[in-house]
Amino acid sequence: MDAMTRIEQAMQVALGTTGGSPPRLAAALRYAVFPGGARVRPRLCLSVAGACGGHDPAAAEAAAVAIELLHCASLVHDDMPCFDDAAMRRGKPSVHRAFGENLALLTGDALIVLAFQTLGQGASGEGAGRLGALLAIVAGAAGMPFGIVAGQAWECEPQADLAVYQRAKTAALFAAAAAAGAAAGAPVGQAMVAGWQRFGEHLGEAYQVADDIRDVLARPEEMGKPAGQDHHLGRPSAVAAFGARGALLRLKGLVASAIGAIPPCPGAGDLRGLILLEVQRLLPDDISRRAA
Amino acid sequence: MDAMTRIEQAMQVALGTTGGSPPRLAAALRYAVFPGGARVRPRLCLSVAGACGGHDPAAAEAAAVAIELLHCASLVHDDMPCFDDAAMRRGKPSVHRAFGENLALLTGDALIVLAFQTLGQGASGEGAGRLGALLAIVAGAAGMPFGIVAGQAWECEPQADLAVYQRAKTAALFAAAAAAGAAAGAPVGQAMVAGWQRFGEHLGEAYQVADDIRDVLARPEEMGKPAGQDHHLGRPSAVAAFGARGALLRLKGLVASAIGAIPPCPGAGDLRGLILLEVQRLLPDDISRRAA
Repeated sequence: MDAMTRIEQAMQVALGTTGGSPPRLAAALRYAVFPGGARVRPRLCLSVAGACGGHDPAAAEAAAVAIELLHCASLVHDDMPCFDDAAMRRGKPSVHRAFGENLALLTGDALIVLAFQTLGQGASGEGAGRLGALLAIVAGAAGMPFGIVAGQAWECEPQADLAVYQRAKTAALFAAAAAAGAAAGAPVGQAMVAGWQRFGEHLGEAYQVADDIRDVLARPEEMGKPAGQDHHLGRPSAVAAFGARGALLRLKGLVASAIGAIPPCPGAGDLRGLILLEVQRLLPDDISRRAA
Repeated sequence: MDAMTRIEQAMQVALGTTGGSPPRLAAALRYAVFPGGARVRPRLCLSVAGACGGHDPAAAEAAAVAIELLHCASLVHDDMPCFDDAAMRRGKPSVHRAFGENLALLTGDALIVLAFQTLGQGASGEGAGRLGALLAIVAGAAGMPFGIVAGQAWECEPQADLAVYQRAKTAALFAAAAAAGAAAGAPVGQAMVAGWQRFGEHLGEAYQVADDIRDVLARPEEMGKPAGQDHHLGRPSAVAAFGARGALLRLKGLVASAIGAIPPCPGAGDLRGLILLEVQRLLPDDISRRAA
């Protein structure tokens, strides 16, 4: 089964346990999660788990789903009127536009809780010994002081350091995806979590820079959301900081750093190939040419 | 050390790990958590843990703190303009009035994440074998389909069953406090979780009914928030359903059911006494007289 199919099936199982739920909230949860985006973070998690030996596939899937649910939660809350007031997301009305602000608020909350519930279920069998490590990794990437919630909160400060902001807002969840994949895939206690976190952080920063470049140079129909949002919302952006060409150079440097940071593992070669494919998907040649 | 001191110290430790956080979010988190209310749920958790033998105090404290943080998160989000639009909470401006809607949104999110992070940290030593059980109990009480988020979501439905709504909105967290206390305090695998959940549910319903009575009959200075909110917001209430006198009878029945449901444990007698004291605190004689 390919990674995308595994992820979608595991997401369906996680979202399927809503019998007896308030129907509108249950509908809003499904709306926020399906159809998904590229599922970049859970694919990264499963790739690293496989590269490390694939010792506990159930725990790896649980971690992958948990991280994607946290990502979906952050999109729902970031889109709300008190932040971006985004009308569209993934080519359809945002959750608060489709269901109202009250249900959008609860949808994010329910997705955060479901992330941890899913993690606990997936790592409660064979993987029980891994649960503490996985929970620390995933919660650390979501909360205070360096997770995505903290990242979003830098938008509420009078000033923020671009690197600190982006590390928390984007790189933290990539770092967690890599580290959780290793914690689930390697033999217990041999995950080299810190090394995988560094690798994931470089990748996450690369992803953010690629996103900044696309925000300026891609056409709306290539993105599923309006272009120029960062500029419009006065948000920090690598393109604003370094120019399009400088941002492209930075992206290439970050990808090279990520590849150089891959800890020794059985599947290091395959992982390297996957990353280069992914960068190509993120920033197709025609957009790169516009930047260069 | 008395329970209240243990809880406040453990809450301080949990909130203390915010160095490097965005300062306004860190301030909003502390504002939402300190000074606390009566800390009813964590006191229940510690009482049950003690009654069951007090085998893993660190895990019991972690569960108690996690449950109180989830409760605080729900207060912050329920107070927001898309729900109650409450100006005051615990005798001071609500979080969104003091810090803005954007930070109130993130404060709730950060508290939910911190709850699970705290649980993982407290149950990662001696209590590692308990973590899976505790995580299932706590996440179940927070999320879908029967936790506090689901409970709040019944307010977004065209119609809701009063018992289902209140069980999710209030009783679920009491049930979790009791069950988690047992899972942390009893020898591993001997917690009788289902029995403690029933006990906690009765208590939680009793607490909700007492709150409904106070909403109608207490004076604002006895509550720290405006009176008559349920009626004002058109929310379901035991007083609206049964009248003040009927609600008082229902409260007494629920307390008797809770006491009757206490599973066999070394400290059952002490626990019974604590509950009767607590009911007296919740609904002092002068308010009971107004209802009768």
